[in-house]
Amino acid sequence: MNKDTLLQLLDDVKKGKRSPEEAQARLSDLPYQELGYAKIDHHRAIRTGYPEVVFGEGKSPDQLNGILEVLQKKGNNILATRVSPDLYQAVKSISPDLQYHELARCITLRQKNPAMPETSIAVVTAGTSDLPVAEEAAVTAEIFDNKVERFFDVGVAGIHRLFDQLDRIREARVLIVIAGMEGALPSIVGGLVDKPVIAVPTSIGYGANFGGLSALLGMLTSCASGVSVVNIDNGFGAAYQASMINRL
Amino acid sequence: MNKDTLLQLLDDVKKGKRSPEEAQARLSDLPYQELGYAKIDHHRAIRTGYPEVVFGEGKSPDQLNGILEVLQKKGNNILATRVSPDLYQAVKSISPDLQYHELARCITLRQKNPAMPETSIAVVTAGTSDLPVAEEAAVTAEIFDNKVERFFDVGVAGIHRLFDQLDRIREARVLIVIAGMEGALPSIVGGLVDKPVIAVPTSIGYGANFGGLSALLGMLTSCASGVSVVNIDNGFGAAYQASMINRL
Amino acid sequence: MNKDTLLQLLDDVKKGKRSPEEAQARLSDLPYQELGYAKIDHHRAIRTGYPEVVFGEGKSPDQLNGILEVLQKKGNNILATRVSPDLYQAVKSISPDLQYHELARCITLRQKNPAMPETSIAVVTAGTSDLPVAEEAAVTAEIFDNKVERFFDVGVAGIHRLFDQLDRIREARVLIVIAGMEGALPSIVGGLVDKPVIAVPTSIGYGANFGGLSALLGMLTSCASGVSVVNIDNGFGAAYQASMINRL
Amino acid sequence: MNKDTLLQLLDDVKKGKRSPEEAQARLSDLPYQELGYAKIDHHRAIRTGYPEVVFGEGKSPDQLNGILEVLQKKGNNILATRVSPDLYQAVKSISPDLQYHELARCITLRQKNPAMPETSIAVVTAGTSDLPVAEEAAVTAEIFDNKVERFFDVGVAGIHRLFDQLDRIREARVLIVIAGMEGALPSIVGGLVDKPVIAVPTSIGYGANFGGLSALLGMLTSCASGVSVVNIDNGFGAAYQASMINRL
Amino acid sequence: MNKDTLLQLLDDVKKGKRSPEEAQARLSDLPYQELGYAKIDHHRAIRTGYPEVVFGEGKSPDQLNGILEVLQKKGNNILATRVSPDLYQAVKSISPDLQYHELARCITLRQKNPAMPETSIAVVTAGTSDLPVAEEAAVTAEIFDNKVERFFDVGVAGIHRLFDQLDRIREARVLIVIAGMEGALPSIVGGLVDKPVIAVPTSIGYGANFGGLSALLGMLTSCASGVSVVNIDNGFGAAYQASMINRL
Amino acid sequence: MNKDTLLQLLDDVKKGKRSPEEAQARLSDLPYQELGYAKIDHHRAIRTGYPEVVFGEGKSPDQLNGILEVLQKKGNNILATRVSPDLYQAVKSISPDLQYHELARCITLRQKNPAMPETSIAVVTAGTSDLPVAEEAAVTAEIFDNKVERFFDVGVAGIHRLFDQLDRIREARVLIVIAGMEGALPSIVGGLVDKPVIAVPTSIGYGANFGGLSALLGMLTSCASGVSVVNIDNGFGAAYQASMINRL
Amino acid sequence: MNKDTLLQLLDDVKKGKRSPEEAQARLSDLPYQELGYAKIDHHRAIRTGYPEVVFGEGKSPDQLNGILEVLQKKGNNILATRVSPDLYQAVKSISPDLQYHELARCITLRQKNPAMPETSIAVVTAGTSDLPVAEEAAVTAEIFDNKVERFFDVGVAGIHRLFDQLDRIREARVLIVIAGMEGALPSIVGGLVDKPVIAVPTSIGYGANFGGLSALLGMLTSCASGVSVVNIDNGFGAAYQASMINRL
Amino acid sequence: MNKDTLLQLLDDVKKGKRSPEEAQARLSDLPYQELGYAKIDHHRAIRTGYPEVVFGEGKSPDQLNGILEVLQKKGNNILATRVSPDLYQAVKSISPDLQYHELARCITLRQKNPAMPETSIAVVTAGTSDLPVAEEAAVTAEIFDNKVERFFDVGVAGIHRLFDQLDRIREARVLIVIAGMEGALPSIVGGLVDKPVIAVPTSIGYGANFGGLSALLGMLTSCASGVSVVNIDNGFGAAYQASMINRL
Repeated sequence: MNKDTLLQLLDDVKKGKRSPEEAQARLSDLPYQELGYAKIDHHRAIRTGYPEVVFGEGKSPDQLNGILEVLQKKGNNILATRVSPDLYQAVKSISPDLQYHELARCITLRQKNPAMPETSIAVVTAGTSDLPVAEEAAVTAEIFDNKVERFFDVGVAGIHRLFDQLDRIREARVLIVIAGMEGALPSIVGGLVDKPVIAVPTSIGYGANFGGLSALLGMLTSCASGVSVVNIDNGFGAAYQASMINRL
Repeated sequence: MNKDTLLQLLDDVKKGKRSPEEAQARLSDLPYQELGYAKIDHHRAIRTGYPEVVFGEGKSPDQLNGILEVLQKKGNNILATRVSPDLYQAVKSISPDLQYHELARCITLRQKNPAMPETSIAVVTAGTSDLPVAEEAAVTAEIFDNKVERFFDVGVAGIHRLFDQLDRIREARVLIVIAGMEGALPSIVGGLVDKPVIAVPTSIGYGANFGGLSALLGMLTSCASGVSVVNIDNGFGAAYQASMINRL
Repeated sequence: MNKDTLLQLLDDVKKGKRSPEEAQARLSDLPYQELGYAKIDHHRAIRTGYPEVVFGEGKSPDQLNGILEVLQKKGNNILATRVSPDLYQAVKSISPDLQYHELARCITLRQKNPAMPETSIAVVTAGTSDLPVAEEAAVTAEIFDNKVERFFDVGVAGIHRLFDQLDRIREARVLIVIAGMEGALPSIVGGLVDKPVIAVPTSIGYGANFGGLSALLGMLTSCASGVSVVNIDNGFGAAYQASMINRL
Repeated sequence: MNKDTLLQLLDDVKKGKRSPEEAQARLSDLPYQELGYAKIDHHRAIRTGYPEVVFGEGKSPDQLNGILEVLQKKGNNILATRVSPDLYQAVKSISPDLQYHELARCITLRQKNPAMPETSIAVVTAGTSDLPVAEEAAVTAEIFDNKVERFFDVGVAGIHRLFDQLDRIREARVLIVIAGMEGALPSIVGGLVDKPVIAVPTSIGYGANFGGLSALLGMLTSCASGVSVVNIDNGFGAAYQASMINRL
Repeated sequence: MNKDTLLQLLDDVKKGKRSPEEAQARLSDLPYQELGYAKIDHHRAIRTGYPEVVFGEGKSPDQLNGILEVLQKKGNNILATRVSPDLYQAVKSISPDLQYHELARCITLRQKNPAMPETSIAVVTAGTSDLPVAEEAAVTAEIFDNKVERFFDVGVAGIHRLFDQLDRIREARVLIVIAGMEGALPSIVGGLVDKPVIAVPTSIGYGANFGGLSALLGMLTSCASGVSVVNIDNGFGAAYQASMINRL
Repeated sequence: MNKDTLLQLLDDVKKGKRSPEEAQARLSDLPYQELGYAKIDHHRAIRTGYPEVVFGEGKSPDQLNGILEVLQKKGNNILATRVSPDLYQAVKSISPDLQYHELARCITLRQKNPAMPETSIAVVTAGTSDLPVAEEAAVTAEIFDNKVERFFDVGVAGIHRLFDQLDRIREARVLIVIAGMEGALPSIVGGLVDKPVIAVPTSIGYGANFGGLSALLGMLTSCASGVSVVNIDNGFGAAYQASMINRL
Repeated sequence: MNKDTLLQLLDDVKKGKRSPEEAQARLSDLPYQELGYAKIDHHRAIRTGYPEVVFGEGKSPDQLNGILEVLQKKGNNILATRVSPDLYQAVKSISPDLQYHELARCITLRQKNPAMPETSIAVVTAGTSDLPVAEEAAVTAEIFDNKVERFFDVGVAGIHRLFDQLDRIREARVLIVIAGMEGALPSIVGGLVDKPVIAVPTSIGYGANFGGLSALLGMLTSCASGVSVVNIDNGFGAAYQASMINRL
Repeated sequence: MNKDTLLQLLDDVKKGKRSPEEAQARLSDLPYQELGYAKIDHHRAIRTGYPEVVFGEGKSPDQLNGILEVLQKKGNNILATRVSPDLYQAVKSISPDLQYHELARCITLRQKNPAMPETSIAVVTAGTSDLPVAEEAAVTAEIFDNKVERFFDVGVAGIHRLFDQLDRIREARVLIVIAGMEGALPSIVGGLVDKPVIAVPTSIGYGANFGGLSALLGMLTSCASGVSVVNIDNGFGAAYQASMINRL
């Protein structure tokens, strides 16, 4: 909004062309609800139909309970990530429809019918130990109304397993590729598939992986084009962007 | 391709259901051309209409000359990145249509008419010193047949400049957001725009930016959803992925 | 004190112009009290009316008890930081007026009437997980006799929440801005407010935040002027300096 | 500005209590001037009387020339930092009143009479090699209309030199303390002076100082209270905040 | 396999010169078995007689049980590394012939008679705290059918202990040298022995060893020729390569 | 020993000028005793009267018991470092004369009368949290037959406490100076005292001290001459070298 | 050599069973020649037939000249690494048979007929920019009397180029695999080839490769077995060990 | 000096028991001379007979000239370190007795007769490239009136060269051991010699030595007792402390 349009808008209000309420809606940005310990942002969900998202880690059972109750009433789909089994036990009475995804450590509550696009998101992992991150990504993508295809344990140490699945992987519209240790899989996949690849380094490993640093640097310096990277273990973030791309 | 379909394919060839040529096309992977000091990969361009891309840095004038001549004959568009002015002088006689983008340090040669989609890519920078990276991204996106909108010098130190342009920025289908130092701009933009954001940290700065590390870490840990990151100063990589997304 | 004034001072003593006591007061520096396991420095509090401060972490219940008892007798206000609930239980019998701030993990004992300046310190946080650090800062600032205004959960992912409070934030004389992950909030605030900003990176987060390093580097390389930084999670240190500035 | 006050403002416009222009002034944020390669922000200087500041590094002579000419016409004081002697030669014809500070690598142009507060800023350095950073801080503080007292070469290896000047150092309202290598000086000064200390690590040194990292970490972990830190070699940033505090 | 030989192969199939099965064996790469949570790769063991290897860390008792049962039926030797005593208890009923190596934290199951070469592998450690890594290496080398000679606690702080054993150490065909802290032992041994040395840094130590980083960097920058390095604490990896070399 | 003197030595043996035993004593280096899990090196203690030293961390009760019993019989003084209270309980029955130093986490057994030199070692700490490292240093120095003077809690935040003790500190022949966080104390002391200073960084602290790194870098880059550094938390190592210097 | 065999040896000399010369040969270790600025070690070459090796970097023309002249007279093959073209000009008059390998920056002088084993070493690179390191490895391996097969520019971004050459790569007895950026190639190759792989990270790249760190960490954490790593850019070291293995 | 002795001292002055001059000498600390760009500290040299030391790096010819002239008049020995040949040319006219040590990059001026102790300092290096640091150490030790024995190029890759010189090395009273790359030499020497070892890491090397970091960490984590460390390349600092120890 530049100065002229702003002036115009105000002028419109003065002249009665727009009601103050109308201008307020135009000007005031994203509404939210004050909850004491948190400000809940209804804006995105209202405008876009996106689910409400809660980051569970570090929240007390009471806090999570309070937030989920408020969100539930809005009627949108809900996703809570990084929820431990104990934390889930403390909030599960909110609704019988709450679903807990143990491996992904996520809670979902579906309150709206899915509106799936035809295309799908591929979630690809290098090893079995990347599964929790992969499932966080998959569960996130699904509650955001995307079809998800899983391709697990196809890492570079036995690369024939990847080639075996390549045709199906190529059918996805966007790929999430997850790997720890040397983090080479996104480079390989990026060189074989002409679709955007979102790479997720994981903190899985020991020694010189330094909490995911080796995979992170490997993915950032990938020689393959079309690869971008999100934070270590951030399956949610990868799925959020993949969903944006898949639903464009 | 799993073992059964492979066996089937071979069986089809044996029985004459498929010609060997057909099977070869199915099986043989990406062709390339041996140039002595480099293997040129024509596959992508042939199959997808993508331009041929050359990384100029570290190449001798003779090497770049040789590669460009081969590529020119294929008739595709050509992009050479990280080409110093001196290196450009040494190769510019190849074609009068070679274009040198000084700020972006890129050579382009357009040999095919552009097939632009309606949608555009926004290239957004925090400061004026991020311009070389931004121009590498913009020139790349354009030779890949995308419309590009530039929004420069709208960084967080004077955030009203960003808000002023927000309406136009929101019109893009995908955003490339470039910043050095604290790298906060992609977080802000990601919180304001519901489109995929590809963040590019730059090595611009001094002191504790440690060659782009501060911006890189800031972008990776961005609190905003929908942000992914490419390597420091990698304008080309960001544009490559943005083009993939824009042209989906 | 250069050599000449020293000689003069001693000469004054010799000639009886100054008593030895007077010279001693001039020369001897800061007195303290030997407690065996610690030397308690009464100087600051005596001279300035500042509260006595104890760093609780790593102290045994007996040690903390001993130090608090000595300090209590001096009659000043007392602040003990980094005190776990268990440690608090072990010392709370010292005085019924001890106050325990659970979120801030601080003990305070007010023994002097507050002498508040008119102006206030704003404590601003990016997210709800930054609250413990924010409360340590707020409790510290209050026991140092400052009015504190709290603005929590106004981080860059939903920047409209910040703008909504901007007028009130601008009323403070000095700001403490607290953020983890990319640590972008102090840059934004510093670009919008013409007051000194003391930034506190927090260790909240995961992956590439590396224990607060991402926020620390982001804040140090902030493009906004008027921002300085204290150690990761150091709410106390930020409040100490903010109090100095507010009470100038 | 919360929603109610916004609605009120718009209602005022509708009812003619405020002119649209008035509301626009209230609403529209910081104006700036488009220069092609840069957006010049006049807002701060207009509103606050602050000088215009230009970061010279990485700017071409033409660019710097263009920016300085625009700024000169506004009639404010001007500060350009990180200006090499060569760059200065290329722009010095703009005005005979341009002053070049060689050690500080700064250009200043004073167009308004100084309005000095009574109090002063102390600039304290550990060694002679910290002088360029110290002078950048001092020149900045002076063009921002502050009295500056310089205390150079009083580092911890010969700490008596510091004690000798302590009385005069204590007279300042705020201190900028600059050191390389182990960066211990701010800790010492912070323990001896009851004024805010802004610490500047410098990249001076060799071996394990790793480009200023040793001094930076030392200052951040300072045991003394009342110390905050700016980026390595950032004399300007320290002076900017010190000026804010001194002029409160 | 270039395009011509591929075409030739397919042509052979068409003309009946090769059976589809023959071509499949030529083309299809490494077979594996889908287990739901893991893809077991039988290829290596089938083709080479190598044992099957399982990485135990992070596997649930059920998962490890399932994998071991499948592997046992194939009749090959089995090695499971990083198996805690608890995990071993949960799977030991699979076979009375399972052997648990407590110090090495490995399970082995020998189902084939060893085919030992004459030559041996020396496993050399600097200190007693390197023993777990050394035993992982030794147990691995033995189940891969190698003779192993152990030389423990011969580090550089008492280098005469190394010299005392030098004649015997020189008899090995390849050496695994394991050290923490400064990691100097491989340099010494590499300067005294004309055999390939595989160095293993360990995470043993405190302070500036930073989880094995000091030993890792020391070994990588070794002045002695003939030394290569594997990941921190990776006794298995060192033994795998040593076995390859010993059995060439 | 060069080749000629070696030849000469052997020739002497042949000619009977030296007995083989004599030559053996000349040639054979440091003897040790094989204990299965450890090689005990009696050489140093035998030759120099030094105590036997055992590093307790990571040793099982049985191992420590075995080693201590062997050492006890040799009749030398014994020092075991990094011994937890539990580990001490498991071995204390070896001798009623075993002494456990809880803060230092050390066991000592004195079996020889001390032969103290006149001069002393000063152990100086910045804060109370450095005490465990300081006591490890002090206990080590004492069992190595040195007089130790302790100066605790004299860090730079209240530097007058240091000056108060300076005369007594200057009486020591060599100083061990221990500090965490910014690690500035050795720089200060090194600038005030003309004796060798051995600096010990501690891992005490939080935030940007990164496990002692800030103190380590600060000490290594100390501007004061005469300061050298040992590993983080290595009180034993500092005392070992200080004892060497004190007893020269 | 333990004490008993030493005593025995000396006794043998005394009794005349061995001549002093004989014992000297047994005891005296590696002879060398004092050159003032360097000690030249003839031992290895004498005993093993290995070439003499000189590290050229940092040597003055005079020093290199002196060393080469001494080595030439011994009659062995000679290898000098890290020799700039200028340095080569300064020493080339030593012998018309000196060969300069420009890309590898190596000098070789062959004075003995090669004794090649049948087997070969494969040198594999990811990109064209890895060629200097690859040629250093190849030239080293050749002067150490090994057959070398070169496979350049077969990196993971176009992995079909690798597969195309896989059959020939598998024929080597040991592989040197060289890559920069994400360093993924050794992982891929190690998963496809049952031969020892020595990985060499290169410092080629930009941004987050941090001078080779990304490739180094990637290779160290490789999921493939049978991979060990040498220092960044250390083509010589890789070839030295590969030669050891190939010639076992 | 505690408060009572201070009061006593002042009382003595008052009563005429001490002259003000006497008290001044007792109280006033280290005198210095103001030179504008530097404060020259004469104290140490006056009191102790130590040479005056100047750090040349970063000083202009004029500054160095000015400082040297002032120092020369005091009549003490002078040492200037880090002096480039060009800088030396600019100051050499000060005195015909100035000596320039090219390899060490030091200037010395001897104005007092040496007072050598009987004992000596050994300067030991691993390689020829460590010579500049070694010579800085040796020249420093000599101008501080110590006998120096040089043992160069005895690193761990050919450890027999070290053993050959061990008897002579053991004769020194204190050792300076200098090494780059893995920095293992001080560990070896510390395990063989019962004298204090001061270790100096050098920045010599490439790849993973990261500017001396590998050697620094290796030396800090040395398993040998009696080793302490100074900054990377700090030959002067090592010699300063060694001189202190040798002259005790």
